[in-house]
Amino acid sequence: MILALAGGVGGARLASGLAQVLAPDALVIAVNTGDDFRHLGLHISPDLDSVMYRLAGLNDPERGWGLAGESWAFMAALERLGGETWFRLGDRDLATHVERTRRIAAGETLSEVTAALARGLAIAHTLAPMSDDPVSTRVRTRDGELAFQDYFVRLACKPAVTGFSFAGAADARPSPALAAALEAPALEAIVICPSNPFVSIAPILAVAAVADAIRRRRVPLVAVSPIIAAEAVKGPAAKMMRELGLEASAAGIARHYRGLADGIVIDQLDGQLAPRIEADGMAVAVAPTLMRSLDEERRLAGVTLDFALRLKRGRR
Amino acid sequence: MILALAGGVGGARLASGLAQVLAPDALVIAVNTGDDFRHLGLHISPDLDSVMYRLAGLNDPERGWGLAGESWAFMAALERLGGETWFRLGDRDLATHVERTRRIAAGETLSEVTAALARGLAIAHTLAPMSDDPVSTRVRTRDGELAFQDYFVRLACKPAVTGFSFAGAADARPSPALAAALEAPALEAIVICPSNPFVSIAPILAVAAVADAIRRRRVPLVAVSPIIAAEAVKGPAAKMMRELGLEASAAGIARHYRGLADGIVIDQLDGQLAPRIEADGMAVAVAPTLMRSLDEERRLAGVTLDFALRLKRGRR
Repeated sequence: MILALAGGVGGARLASGLAQVLAPDALVIAVNTGDDFRHLGLHISPDLDSVMYRLAGLNDPERGWGLAGESWAFMAALERLGGETWFRLGDRDLATHVERTRRIAAGETLSEVTAALARGLAIAHTLAPMSDDPVSTRVRTRDGELAFQDYFVRLACKPAVTGFSFAGAADARPSPALAAALEAPALEAIVICPSNPFVSIAPILAVAAVADAIRRRRVPLVAVSPIIAAEAVKGPAAKMMRELGLEASAAGIARHYRGLADGIVIDQLDGQLAPRIEADGMAVAVAPTLMRSLDEERRLAGVTLDFALRLKRGRR
Repeated sequence: MILALAGGVGGARLASGLAQVLAPDALVIAVNTGDDFRHLGLHISPDLDSVMYRLAGLNDPERGWGLAGESWAFMAALERLGGETWFRLGDRDLATHVERTRRIAAGETLSEVTAALARGLAIAHTLAPMSDDPVSTRVRTRDGELAFQDYFVRLACKPAVTGFSFAGAADARPSPALAAALEAPALEAIVICPSNPFVSIAPILAVAAVADAIRRRRVPLVAVSPIIAAEAVKGPAAKMMRELGLEASAAGIARHYRGLADGIVIDQLDGQLAPRIEADGMAVAVAPTLMRSLDEERRLAGVTLDFALRLKRGRR
């Protein structure tokens, strides 16, 4: 059994690849909820939705978020009423938020809601939030501290970041599915998907019991670099690394995960970085990591799993 | 100044007629909220929306509810997620419910929200809920008591009714705009729109302070019959009258409002009922009451106002 930790678009794509090669009971995907927020009275879980829509084959690949073939009648009507429209919600996407909000108000946990929504979309693998308790990513910038969506959507990631915090993470418990996966005797490896390390993966690792369990683990942990040739495929990861004074490269990602990851998968364009990363004490696999199709997702998932199981054999 | 009491489609149409002939500060439209309910976590006010959409010229005249040119992407997506779809919410209509729910959660009263939404739709006249306090219409039927929307939408008005109650009405206060209109020195007449007397008008009159103020009034009260030639133009009013053992006719409506209304406007097809209604002690105006266009709305509003002002002079 494999546990994948995932955030936005890159995480959704590798999660989709893993779901293609692993049986439903052999994969647990635990997703960042630090971006979750209430907007228009609705509980919005952007990363859970990105992964869910990708697993269901319903995501919009051009836009990078939301559903393909989306329409925007709700948004136009809301604008006419003078409502808040900086965070765009498509008509179909809205059903997810309304149904999630309704179920949570009726007393279901976010895990239960996520499972129900995934069932509705015929997703067979286990999709779970990192926690059922609220955790809020806060972005420290040169212009002051910002709520994540203010930074990410409203200000389009423009302010220079100086750090991050995850309000609630210290007291948050892992979701039941994540907690069970971390302790499962059948667990063979943990995969950190190519998601933003600061705002997609760090919130998951900030949940105290998750960090503890990962430290005590007896299986390899493998990260896939979200940085290819010094740039993020999508999103502000490389920009953040530069602003934080880190090397915006796969080597910088390896350095970031040092002490946590046993190995890292880096892109074929970054092969020259492998000796330096290995010299730093981390195993490296070099592969095409850009995922533009189901095939490319599946291939990267295969490479990542082979690499992790090779490290597992090495550990014994 | 005129105070109009209104419910669904017929109420929306006469309110629109009154708004065509009266200045913005000369008309207060107080709308039934006994149908209001929470659905999918949203605060839905069907009658307020029917009147608001008609006043804004955005209503769907074929369907009789919701917005013209509506799309249903949200509903289809919700169905796929296994959500509740018996109460249909269009993509544009949804913006109204989401914005209303958000504002109420933020502490605004239903009156404040209604005013803000109406402003957003460029409605100049005063549109107000009957009360900012919750009132719930309950329908007693031979199959037991039902919540209004269960009876009206889910069961399509099929159960035979035996009576009605309005939970919360005894303790509900009139909305500020309705309370002010009832006591305004400038008030010249009260108009009961051609809305269902049992489930659109009765809830308004069930608000204790409204009933009191109407009893103490010094201006005429005129009702417009929602029944033409023994049938309701739309909705279950005539069916309800038959089930309750009442005469399903304009004369039955006059009998229902006896002791409350000073006069009634009945349709030209029902002119033969006038002597009987007048013998019962109520003034009658006979006019075309079917409203299929802005012109017909305006004409009936004119007839109704002329009639009311004639009664006012007679009262002096």
